[in-house]
Amino acid sequence: MTPTIGVFDSGFGGLTVLRALIERMPQARYAFLGDTARLPYGSKSRRTIARFAAESAQFLVRDQGAEFLVIACNTASALALDAIQDAVSVPVLGVIEPGAAAAHAASRTGDVLVIATDATVHSHAYTAACRSLGLRAFEKACPLLVPLVEEGWIDPSTATGNVTAEVIRIYLAELTAEAAAEDLNPDVLLLGCTHYPLLRPLLEAAVPAGVRVIDSAQAAAQAAVQIIDGRLSPASAVAAPATEISCFATDSVDKFERLGSRFLGRPVGQVQLVDLGG
Amino acid sequence: MTPTIGVFDSGFGGLTVLRALIERMPQARYAFLGDTARLPYGSKSRRTIARFAAESAQFLVRDQGAEFLVIACNTASALALDAIQDAVSVPVLGVIEPGAAAAHAASRTGDVLVIATDATVHSHAYTAACRSLGLRAFEKACPLLVPLVEEGWIDPSTATGNVTAEVIRIYLAELTAEAAAEDLNPDVLLLGCTHYPLLRPLLEAAVPAGVRVIDSAQAAAQAAVQIIDGRLSPASAVAAPATEISCFATDSVDKFERLGSRFLGRPVGQVQLVDLGG
Repeated sequence: MTPTIGVFDSGFGGLTVLRALIERMPQARYAFLGDTARLPYGSKSRRTIARFAAESAQFLVRDQGAEFLVIACNTASALALDAIQDAVSVPVLGVIEPGAAAAHAASRTGDVLVIATDATVHSHAYTAACRSLGLRAFEKACPLLVPLVEEGWIDPSTATGNVTAEVIRIYLAELTAEAAAEDLNPDVLLLGCTHYPLLRPLLEAAVPAGVRVIDSAQAAAQAAVQIIDGRLSPASAVAAPATEISCFATDSVDKFERLGSRFLGRPVGQVQLVDLGG
Repeated sequence: MTPTIGVFDSGFGGLTVLRALIERMPQARYAFLGDTARLPYGSKSRRTIARFAAESAQFLVRDQGAEFLVIACNTASALALDAIQDAVSVPVLGVIEPGAAAAHAASRTGDVLVIATDATVHSHAYTAACRSLGLRAFEKACPLLVPLVEEGWIDPSTATGNVTAEVIRIYLAELTAEAAAEDLNPDVLLLGCTHYPLLRPLLEAAVPAGVRVIDSAQAAAQAAVQIIDGRLSPASAVAAPATEISCFATDSVDKFERLGSRFLGRPVGQVQLVDLGG
């Protein structure tokens, strides 16, 4: 029986979560929805985000038959997970708790650095999730990293990649100095934005010695696969049917199709436009 | 008689236009509205942008008594100037035609480079406005410049300013190579985004010799002042009453208050939240 898994983001950054899911569970049908007409969620009120996210979740469950939902959007995970769980009757997993759990598993000192967008940092959702696991988290917003990824300035061997490396160096120097001033001794850098996995090589080259890079996208995919079917293994996947992916967006299909493959690691194919209302 | 001038933007970048207006016409009352709850306009349809812009214009005219409107937003100027003119009974000026006219006045070769956001470039509004004046324009989207300005990485004497200088060097090298491949011989760089005046020193240091930097914000302010009152002069302003500024936003008052003074060149004071509906 091939499961249908719905993956939701306000944009298309969540394709990195879909990519991580496919790597772990290729024998599935995936429906991905980017609510691109109404992004960015980060500047909107909790009530508005909850309504948008609930409508998007209902599209994936009712119209696409999703039996499991992964909320591959940090803002929606932080502010609307309850509203989504109320809106649909299937299991729903966000990215924040799995990210915090992976940081907990990786950290020996109990101190964690988190980088994310402005909106995610202001929600303090990672700090709360880390605290509930006994971790101290220190968060920093890195607003330039999403546009740098969307410009494709990510190859360390080029002049544009060098710009991104320097931006990362500046952000991490500020972050580690600020954390040290608070007497933290971090050994984990948690990537709290679905765009950041594309910067992983640059980030790993820039972190201080002894700091491990942990990725919410990978952590969420791993947690989802454990919940969906503990029996599936890479070995069983070899003989499985091909992965089936359907991508939907509420606007900006061009940008989605143009940039999406970079996030997904394979062609996204034709993105279907859907109208969820204003 | 002190005129009341309404200035509208989807965000707060248009404060650079307000700043240029105040420099030229300090003896006036200004009402600035940033429709921050519904930005970015760039990813929305022409019909939606026209509705948002018309509602915003009506707020400035009906509720704030503006007798003249400056649309300090490139996207709204490109896609909704007609709709705004239909919605209100006062004179309305956008930023694009004054920018093109200033480029026309400055250029000897008739070839113009334009840098702007993705949305403005895709509208091709500057190309059309330049063409109607007999200019050839070559446009390039520079999506990293707005976030770099909003991060405040604009001081050439710092490491962060050096990042921005390198980003500008890369964009301008690509732009001039692309324009040369089309046999253009440009002698003007037109800044088609209200954020870019904050980068003027970095841009002037980076343009090839013989290329002048022309700024839509300055050009629009100059055109507005000529229309509003040809008799006002800097000399008459010395004895004039103090400038009066009221700033309004539909959301994100914090960010507006925090960053706005950098754009306006003086404190923006308390920003009042207004609700224009969804």
